[in-house]
Amino acid sequence: MTRQDGRAFDELRPVTITPNFVKFAEGSCLIQCGDTMVLCCASVEDKVPPHVPEGAGWVTAEYSMLPRANRERSRRDISKLKLSPRSAEIQRLVGRSLRAAVDMNKLGEHTITIDCDVLQGDGGTRTASVTGGFVALSLACRKLVEAGILAEDPIRHFVTGVSAGIVDEQPMLDLQYSEDSRAQVDLNCVMNELGEIIELQGTGEGRAFTAEEQQELVRLCAKGNRELLNIQREILKR
Amino acid sequence: MTRQDGRAFDELRPVTITPNFVKFAEGSCLIQCGDTMVLCCASVEDKVPPHVPEGAGWVTAEYSMLPRANRERSRRDISKLKLSPRSAEIQRLVGRSLRAAVDMNKLGEHTITIDCDVLQGDGGTRTASVTGGFVALSLACRKLVEAGILAEDPIRHFVTGVSAGIVDEQPMLDLQYSEDSRAQVDLNCVMNELGEIIELQGTGEGRAFTAEEQQELVRLCAKGNRELLNIQREILKR
Amino acid sequence: MTRQDGRAFDELRPVTITPNFVKFAEGSCLIQCGDTMVLCCASVEDKVPPHVPEGAGWVTAEYSMLPRANRERSRRDISKLKLSPRSAEIQRLVGRSLRAAVDMNKLGEHTITIDCDVLQGDGGTRTASVTGGFVALSLACRKLVEAGILAEDPIRHFVTGVSAGIVDEQPMLDLQYSEDSRAQVDLNCVMNELGEIIELQGTGEGRAFTAEEQQELVRLCAKGNRELLNIQREILKR
Amino acid sequence: MTRQDGRAFDELRPVTITPNFVKFAEGSCLIQCGDTMVLCCASVEDKVPPHVPEGAGWVTAEYSMLPRANRERSRRDISKLKLSPRSAEIQRLVGRSLRAAVDMNKLGEHTITIDCDVLQGDGGTRTASVTGGFVALSLACRKLVEAGILAEDPIRHFVTGVSAGIVDEQPMLDLQYSEDSRAQVDLNCVMNELGEIIELQGTGEGRAFTAEEQQELVRLCAKGNRELLNIQREILKR
Amino acid sequence: MTRQDGRAFDELRPVTITPNFVKFAEGSCLIQCGDTMVLCCASVEDKVPPHVPEGAGWVTAEYSMLPRANRERSRRDISKLKLSPRSAEIQRLVGRSLRAAVDMNKLGEHTITIDCDVLQGDGGTRTASVTGGFVALSLACRKLVEAGILAEDPIRHFVTGVSAGIVDEQPMLDLQYSEDSRAQVDLNCVMNELGEIIELQGTGEGRAFTAEEQQELVRLCAKGNRELLNIQREILKR
Amino acid sequence: MTRQDGRAFDELRPVTITPNFVKFAEGSCLIQCGDTMVLCCASVEDKVPPHVPEGAGWVTAEYSMLPRANRERSRRDISKLKLSPRSAEIQRLVGRSLRAAVDMNKLGEHTITIDCDVLQGDGGTRTASVTGGFVALSLACRKLVEAGILAEDPIRHFVTGVSAGIVDEQPMLDLQYSEDSRAQVDLNCVMNELGEIIELQGTGEGRAFTAEEQQELVRLCAKGNRELLNIQREILKR
Repeated sequence: MTRQDGRAFDELRPVTITPNFVKFAEGSCLIQCGDTMVLCCASVEDKVPPHVPEGAGWVTAEYSMLPRANRERSRRDISKLKLSPRSAEIQRLVGRSLRAAVDMNKLGEHTITIDCDVLQGDGGTRTASVTGGFVALSLACRKLVEAGILAEDPIRHFVTGVSAGIVDEQPMLDLQYSEDSRAQVDLNCVMNELGEIIELQGTGEGRAFTAEEQQELVRLCAKGNRELLNIQREILKR
Repeated sequence: MTRQDGRAFDELRPVTITPNFVKFAEGSCLIQCGDTMVLCCASVEDKVPPHVPEGAGWVTAEYSMLPRANRERSRRDISKLKLSPRSAEIQRLVGRSLRAAVDMNKLGEHTITIDCDVLQGDGGTRTASVTGGFVALSLACRKLVEAGILAEDPIRHFVTGVSAGIVDEQPMLDLQYSEDSRAQVDLNCVMNELGEIIELQGTGEGRAFTAEEQQELVRLCAKGNRELLNIQREILKR
Repeated sequence: MTRQDGRAFDELRPVTITPNFVKFAEGSCLIQCGDTMVLCCASVEDKVPPHVPEGAGWVTAEYSMLPRANRERSRRDISKLKLSPRSAEIQRLVGRSLRAAVDMNKLGEHTITIDCDVLQGDGGTRTASVTGGFVALSLACRKLVEAGILAEDPIRHFVTGVSAGIVDEQPMLDLQYSEDSRAQVDLNCVMNELGEIIELQGTGEGRAFTAEEQQELVRLCAKGNRELLNIQREILKR
Repeated sequence: MTRQDGRAFDELRPVTITPNFVKFAEGSCLIQCGDTMVLCCASVEDKVPPHVPEGAGWVTAEYSMLPRANRERSRRDISKLKLSPRSAEIQRLVGRSLRAAVDMNKLGEHTITIDCDVLQGDGGTRTASVTGGFVALSLACRKLVEAGILAEDPIRHFVTGVSAGIVDEQPMLDLQYSEDSRAQVDLNCVMNELGEIIELQGTGEGRAFTAEEQQELVRLCAKGNRELLNIQREILKR
Repeated sequence: MTRQDGRAFDELRPVTITPNFVKFAEGSCLIQCGDTMVLCCASVEDKVPPHVPEGAGWVTAEYSMLPRANRERSRRDISKLKLSPRSAEIQRLVGRSLRAAVDMNKLGEHTITIDCDVLQGDGGTRTASVTGGFVALSLACRKLVEAGILAEDPIRHFVTGVSAGIVDEQPMLDLQYSEDSRAQVDLNCVMNELGEIIELQGTGEGRAFTAEEQQELVRLCAKGNRELLNIQREILKR
Repeated sequence: MTRQDGRAFDELRPVTITPNFVKFAEGSCLIQCGDTMVLCCASVEDKVPPHVPEGAGWVTAEYSMLPRANRERSRRDISKLKLSPRSAEIQRLVGRSLRAAVDMNKLGEHTITIDCDVLQGDGGTRTASVTGGFVALSLACRKLVEAGILAEDPIRHFVTGVSAGIVDEQPMLDLQYSEDSRAQVDLNCVMNELGEIIELQGTGEGRAFTAEEQQELVRLCAKGNRELLNIQREILKR
């Protein structure tokens, strides 16, 4: 048995990250993981939300799908007057993941908002948003340093994200939509460059899963995250 | 070093589940885990959302905190015209967890909505909602069987949820708010009666964590879930 | 002819008020009038809305029913993005009633918000909110005095509320839902400890009513309010 | 002591009702009570809301103030995305009052919506909406009979509304804004042509009031309502 | 071939402007163009939106139709929780048109909001809003000068608006609804007293149109605008 | 005097249209006009809105800017719970323009929605949306014919849009943002392949303009539209 697109079970889809895809954002990239395409833009503001300690900064994320990113058109959030609950869940995950990458004291009283807009969705959009969002964030931080606004780069470590799952009883890395939609177990894992876990979300869609299966999926994700890390290093030359 | 309330590191807070706390819902309970109090109500409707296959049923959950469930009053969602993104995230978790407990074909064309309203929040409200929500769901299913509406109880297995975390480098079970608010790592784990995982969510709040630490937290949760399972069995006599 | 539950026509349902039902609110109680259960919480903030004269305080109320408080589940306000117009009407009544109890100059620049959340509704939820809301308000004021924040208790007088109605041409006190739903006339009356009226709302549901009938209903309410006053005095020891 | 505008204490402001002020509505009028101006339009639809028994009709009301109806401009509801709670309260009162005027079985499966839009507000807008709304409703019903859509006029009785209040310890009829804004007690009373009460709302704004005071205010309203009834009869020739 | 109401092709409907129709607004009028009736109110506030340069003022407009202004009742914006997109488009046009009439430096740090509420709509409501809105704006500016708040009248020039269209291949001025609803081309034109264009909007409803046809429609509008200007001069005595 | 980017006054910015930029939409393209980038997607549904005559189809458009499409980040519509009024205005223009291109009877009972999402905005986004939207629409129609769903291509004629304006008293074609933001007059013109006008919108931003100036701007637009038409023909091979 092989995968629909001929990949090995522990193989990522082809990944392309185009930095500075748009020109106004302080940092941006277009990340493509197979057919999944996410535009990630980092915007810097000179203020922070009220809950942030004095002198510290803040990092947050927003996530949205364009109406025709998927096989069927979805109505825009604004036409339903509700942020999609799925988007709410995802942007909280992306925000937590990217916040972990930044030393808030070095960032100072700035807010960086990472907008992740899915132009095309074919599975793995939340982890692509983490991986691409880190590139946009990192480019924005560098610009702040180069402009003399920050004394030091506030990035503490790299952040990448990838999914793994069990399909037809077979654990596999980086599910595309056709696999994801019939997965028995689905797990997303965000890691730093040491392979430590920042966020972990696992769901038994069709059945429960054992602690051993869970560990196997984390191992697959660790492999994928190492490869994504190398792509980030290449792009960011850091 | 001991915990603030004298508990052992692998000890649950006292748990009380009062079944049928309110009388109109098909199933209900008030679950108290220490000072956390959640009212869980299961409501049955004779219709299903459009995406459900013909002949099958559906289970969904809603989660909300009363305005003064916490140390500070929060404005109601309706006064902000936005479902709290945190509530959106939690009710998706509770819904997935409880859906996993039900055989949708045995449920037939009914929707069961589990409303989890937090009267008082002192940490662990999402997992209390899962554990209490299962009791409400289970009581409602029994009523459907007793009323002759269902031929067979659609409950496939028990579902319980509990959290664990690392505080001051010490892994511990069932964090209360004073622990949760300074936890380095926080992990929620929903399991069935075989100790298999249904949902897993781990977050490095203050630092990343290793796969070994993650496994230790899952082991703590497994112990807590076994104890919660016994309390559910007692209440439900099944 | 007697009432469904054997009560005399001028008899209240059994009333229980549990003070301090939740622990974070500055004042709280659970009020039960027969099967009606309302959780009332008073929250104090150190600011007032813009329309309040300098140096004075403010008291306001919010009212909501949990989705399964009634025989049928209702969708949450947030899922309809509209405050229920009935809730809007009721919380204005509760707010006016409780504001009348407080000397705003003695309260100083604080806002007290009384949240009335109906856990179970079996008729008379708005007047139970007034009666229970007063207990929560009074407990919160006492706490402000005990904490030295206020020099003097700002409570000017007690406030209680009860309904009466005409069912099958028979005037009766404190309608439960089964009576309320077929009442010809329905009247709510909020009074102080002198038996003076603070709020009066009467509606001819099935037919118009005479001034004499209206006076008879106010007399019934006066009796009920006297009894509720005694229960408040007992609880509050004032 | 006399009133600001020289009126006797039991005297209405000058009332003008211009029927058919706009031409598309099935019934309409502009009602002016002193400087208060409300445009009332009745619209007929061939359907009823789901809760209405088969074969019966429905009457409902909507109330709104134009942004500059008052001394200060108010933001529109839509710019706040919230129906003003005061409008919610008032339109429920107007709706109940006008529903009481109609035999729903004679109306058949039609909904009549009475839109009451305040062009200028100088006190008494809710009762002017009731009095003017009845004229619009009555004209619409007549049109339905004339068009052969209804066999019989469904109007059961006339409905008028007026306010009274206590200002500087003096009971007086039909408060204008300068009186209303400093009234100690404010009472609205909706009656039929027999002088029976349909809706009664009394509020102690500055102080509580006795049952005797309340009766005196109802007597004043009864006088005012008789005069309004005569104006309606004149306009409607019925 | 003549027009339904006997008008010549280049003839306006009868226009009546009643200044000071309501008394609280700083400036107001009721404008009637045939059966179209719009209430225009100008409200002055002592503040400006953030984007306005220091020392300068701002003029903005809001437009809305009453629910029964038209042949069929429309739901209110607030009941749909959405500003009608048509209203959004129109109020932007009215705002731009009236802003062009005012010297913002002479206005100083004031905002004038022109509320245009359509009481009855029979075609041409947006241009009637411009023409009537200018009268309300102008009256409000005069009041500011008379009150000594402004040193000098900030009105730079008159503003009028009118529509023209092609119906059955015949260009004609000032379409009423019965013409507008079957027009092939519809063009709105806002001009100053020199006959210069401030706003121009043309739409090919049924077919595209040539530059020559477009010029002919502008010429018709210029004639109508000259006549509206004379009516404004008469009313405003300026 | 020359333009900032060296263009002649009657010269378009470089235009690139990438058809099929995303793969799920029935038709799509990315249009770039200088630095303006708009993703246009056409989605087909097998139903029509209620106002459409039986047997006929419908074409509509939605327009939105990504949060960081511009020099400053804008909050998303959903976070303000309001469709931007500017977006409302634009999507009505785009919808009318593209509807004019289609024979609704040949389209049959299908709705085609054109989503125009601005990835980067540097002036002219609304006319780029029309020009790119036509390509997406046309590709979708072709697919419907190729799939045998439609017997005949419902496209009646080409549609292109471009802006012109007067900057420093100089008429010029296709304003970029740095020109647009200080334009005295701004005019958008949508045309078919015969050079006939479908939509025309002109605004005197800084001053009014004469009919002659307006004609000159239409002539400039006509030149630009001819060139855009050639690019569309090239892409669409029709």
